[in-house]
This record gives sequence, C-alpha cells and structure tokens, in this order.
Amino acid sequence: MTQPVAMTEVWRGTLLESLHLGHAVICDDTGRIVQSWGDPRATVYPRSSCKMIQALPLITSGAAAKYGLGPEHLALACASHSGAAIHTDRVAAWLEHLGLGDDDLRCGPQEPGDMAARDALILADTVPCQMHNNCSGKHSGFLTMAQHMGAGPEYVEIDHPVQQACLAAFEEVTGEASPTYGIDGCSAPNFATSLEGLARAMAWFATAGDRSDRQSAAARQLTAAMMRHPELVAGEGRACTELMRAMNGRAAIKTGAEAVFVAIIPGKRMGVAVKIADGATRASECAIAAILVQLGVLEADHPATRRFMNAPLLNRRGIDCGVIKPAAGFP
Amino acid sequence: MTQPVAMTEVWRGTLLESLHLGHAVICDDTGRIVQSWGDPRATVYPRSSCKMIQALPLITSGAAAKYGLGPEHLALACASHSGAAIHTDRVAAWLEHLGLGDDDLRCGPQEPGDMAARDALILADTVPCQMHNNCSGKHSGFLTMAQHMGAGPEYVEIDHPVQQACLAAFEEVTGEASPTYGIDGCSAPNFATSLEGLARAMAWFATAGDRSDRQSAAARQLTAAMMRHPELVAGEGRACTELMRAMNGRAAIKTGAEAVFVAIIPGKRMGVAVKIADGATRASECAIAAILVQLGVLEADHPATRRFMNAPLLNRRGIDCGVIKPAAGFP
Repeated sequence: MTQPVAMTEVWRGTLLESLHLGHAVICDDTGRIVQSWGDPRATVYPRSSCKMIQALPLITSGAAAKYGLGPEHLALACASHSGAAIHTDRVAAWLEHLGLGDDDLRCGPQEPGDMAARDALILADTVPCQMHNNCSGKHSGFLTMAQHMGAGPEYVEIDHPVQQACLAAFEEVTGEASPTYGIDGCSAPNFATSLEGLARAMAWFATAGDRSDRQSAAARQLTAAMMRHPELVAGEGRACTELMRAMNGRAAIKTGAEAVFVAIIPGKRMGVAVKIADGATRASECAIAAILVQLGVLEADHPATRRFMNAPLLNRRGIDCGVIKPAAGFP
Repeated sequence: MTQPVAMTEVWRGTLLESLHLGHAVICDDTGRIVQSWGDPRATVYPRSSCKMIQALPLITSGAAAKYGLGPEHLALACASHSGAAIHTDRVAAWLEHLGLGDDDLRCGPQEPGDMAARDALILADTVPCQMHNNCSGKHSGFLTMAQHMGAGPEYVEIDHPVQQACLAAFEEVTGEASPTYGIDGCSAPNFATSLEGLARAMAWFATAGDRSDRQSAAARQLTAAMMRHPELVAGEGRACTELMRAMNGRAAIKTGAEAVFVAIIPGKRMGVAVKIADGATRASECAIAAILVQLGVLEADHPATRRFMNAPLLNRRGIDCGVIKPAAGFP
C-alpha cells in the first residue's frame, strides 16, 4: 500500500507544529486517473461527501418530480447544513408537504452549527430536533423516496428499498462493488469505495451533460442545484459554501466527516477526491482548496480561499500566531 | 528523523477509517529514556501541557506565599479549565484579592466549554470575558508574579520578567536550551523543547520529593494540587479530570493543544510525554490512557478509561458505529 503524503502543514512561529498526511485522486472524463497522491486504492467511507450520489435515486425514481422538488430541495438533499433558519425552515416545509414531521426522520437531533440558531434554541429553553441535524435534507430526500415507493418508515435500514437504491447508484457511478458499509453519524448506511472510485464518480457527475440517460440527467440537476445554492449546501463561513461562491459555478464541492472532500468540475471534465488519513477537516479544506487553485478554478488570493488555504492562525486576542498551508510540494 | 508511529485508530464498522501517528517518551528518575515511540528528539510546543512548569516561579519567587495561594489556586494555575462557575468564581476572587480585574488579563475571551456556563452567558445576553478563557488561572498566576515583582502590566511579552522566569524554569527542568517559542492561543509565549525534554521535566516533577531545593518543593506542591483538585484542572467529562480521578493520586496528567499530553507518576518515578503528529486531541487522550494502563497506574476497565481508550463511536441516535482504540502493538 502506498503511504499517504504530506498535504497540510500547521505552523506556529518558526516551527512546524502539526502535519496532516493524505491521499488524493483526480479523474478525467474517461474515469482514468490524471494525477494522484498517496494511495488511490485506499478504501474510504465517503461520509457526507457522497450525498449527491445518494440523491440520484430521489430523481431517477420519479419521486422528486412527483413531489415537485426544486433546486433548493435538491441542494438540501446534498447538504451538510448548519441548521440555520434558512435550512430548517425549508426542511420543515418539505416534510409538511409530504404529510410528515420531525418524528419521521431517523437522523437524530444535533445542535446547530449556526450560532444564531443555536442561541435561539437556548433562549427558547428548547432542545435541537432532528431537522437541525446537518443531514436532515438528505433524510427528507430518503423519506420522499420511501413515500413514493410505498416502502416502510425505517428507511435507514440496510435492506430498505431506499438504501438498496442508493447502493445501486453508488456502485454504478464509482464503477466498483462496494466492499463494506458503516453506520454514519446520521444512522444511514455509508458505503465504502476506493478513493479512485469516488473521484471517478465525481468525474462522471462532471461529464453528465454529455449523456442523455436518466441517471446522468439527475446528476446534472444535482450539480446545478449545489452550485446555484451554495448557502444551502453548508452555511455561512463554511468551506463548501464560501468556496463554491468564490468559484461561481465552476465547481460543485462537498465535504464529508473524517476529512473527505470531493469536487465536480464540469468545465475541466474532472472529478477530485481527497481523504486526510487522520480525519482532520482543517486539513481536507486546505488540500481541496490547493487542488482547486492548481486546476485553475479557484483564485489563490480570493478572500474565501484565504480562509481555508494559507489561513492565518489567529488566537483569542486576534494575534497572528502561524498559518495552515499546503505542504511543500503539494499539490 | 524517526517517523511517528501508529498510536490511535478510528474504526467504523469493519474499516479503519482514520489513523493517528505520534511520538512518545517515558523518562525515568535519572532523566534517561526508558521507552520511546517515534522520534524522542521531535521538537514540540508543549502548549498547555507545561502549565505546571510555568507555575514554578509563581512559588519559587515567593509570590504564592505572599498572596496566600492555596492548592485550589495552584491547580487553576496548571489548568486548561472549562470556564465553569467553579473555575471562574475562583479566578474572579483571586483577581479581586490582587486588586485586579478581568481587564488586567491578557488571555483574551473564550466561550466556555462547560455547557451550563455557556448557556448562562447566552441567556444573560452577554459575551464571554477573559476569565472564561481556559488559561485564566495561569494568567492569574502570571499577574500574581508580576505584582510581586513590581513588573509592568504587559506580562505576556517575551522580555517581561514573568516570561523570562518561566523560560529559566523551563530550560532547567527540561535540561535543554529552548530552540524557539511560539505565541500560544492565550497570547503567552510557549517555549519549544524536544519531546524527550518534556518527558524528562515530568520525571523531574515525579521525583521532586527526593530533593530539598526550592524548585523541587514547588514542583511537589503543584503536582499535589493537580491530583487533589482534578475538577479544577479541566472540567467534568474531560480527560485530565476524569483520568486523574480514576488514578486517585497515582498520577498528575495534563493535556495541551495540538495533541500533547504529559503525565507525572511519582510512584513509578517516571515522566511521560506524548505528541500526536496531526494535533488530534482524541488521539492523544487515547494514547496517554494506553500508556498509563501499560504502566499499571490506570485500570483498563475503569469507566473513565473507557471514555478515552476503546471508546465506542456513538452517533446522534446513540448507535454504536465503531471505536477509537490504541493502534495494534501500541504501546
């Protein structure tokens, strides 16, 4: 097995304080590897980075059309949102449209990452509900599919038709049989693949405009929805939102827990997948930004880029103590 | 340079999802290395793990005695506390005793890690103050020294007598000249050393009872204060507090940012220092627990141990999805 390579350095003063190693792959429109770092065959859980794959059957099944889902719904289905009002209001309306409510979700409650939403809950002396879970858009998509299919309420079970449809889409677009699955933070199965398979899937999304099949049409809709509504895919200040805004339609990107990050770049006909071996999000954010800069779709000196790549380490008095930057020679 | 070795594994289902590499050293009562993993010569910032060293001149200068500081004050001087009421109430009283207040601190404000304290601030529609900073006890010690010395108010500047006293103590107990320093999250200088130097310093603390010099007497007081008041050194549910309670006076331990962890083990006449290369606290907590278990001062099956070593990964519905555990062969 090829070892992971140095990708992100954390400097304090004149000393390299911490170092993150990782794997990364760029695939082209034929699904072949253009460039890789570390081990492209590393088996990974994509975690939330594959939500756009999990949303494919929502469209191809006919469920999205039947329930009138638009780009905002699709962006939320692909989102790891901050639980801000713009997210939870839309999820609440979506569930109501299905005739369902918070109790029908199976993602569990989560304190919102959005500070205003968090403080509002505390001030109201109430606890977060399942709609605040960063995955509640994906789960609303699952519920929409389940209802359309006439399937049972336990939609996160591995043998439920919704999850089996997700697995079929996942294996089709990664081009590989998934070797195993884990239970995600939101209780849904998360199917494993090689990092190369994940990058190949993103390249398949990037070139969906070439093809006229239903799955590719769904991929185009999802990529467009993510790029049109970056504020729904994550939240203010977060990497997916800020970097997609900075790229202004040149790429759709998505983070996943344990430091996975993917990019769909239609203009380059490429897909990218990154996994930091230790699972640190600060490192995957820096690494994906560095790759996007190298590929020419993100400006190195854009203020959004500087939040995640060559970001100053500011301490609690705002003093600049160091920097988080791409490792020497990467990418 | 010797590469870091596998120390902490994060498993989800049947797949190793993330892996943390690190360095560790155990020194004996002669300051020699008993056992090491990775590179004992790795240069590290100890960050908050060296607060008991920074507190030595508080005692040896005569400041602690002059201002009547007891074990609670000394435990707080060594603490990275959660900003709970038990911490901030004591810091406030300490500052008042000095005739000083929050504005005299130079650590900057920080939202409390303690949920009750955090929620109380939000409900009161107020912002955290500097006393909530996890380092406010250390800084109260700095202010006590500065007042005793008749030195100026900018006590975090590198050439201030307080910091120069800390540097002298640091180099004495690590047995090495510090090659550089960084600015810490709390704005104080943080002096670098080898990991071996840090472990040697902890062994020097562990054997302080052998010696009758003022520095060693101060070390005994600090170690005793940390073990007597684990609730003041961190906070409920946190590794330093819970593991020190579980060891019941057999060791004083202290975490530092970017995944440093140290242990002072008087009964074994040993000192331990750990640095996870990527800076992940979940990994340093697991690694120090594993070493303490191996050394026979922490029970592997104690409930506190199981929070940090072989800890189940529970998701947002409380489902057991995996485990965080020592890497095969470590320690």
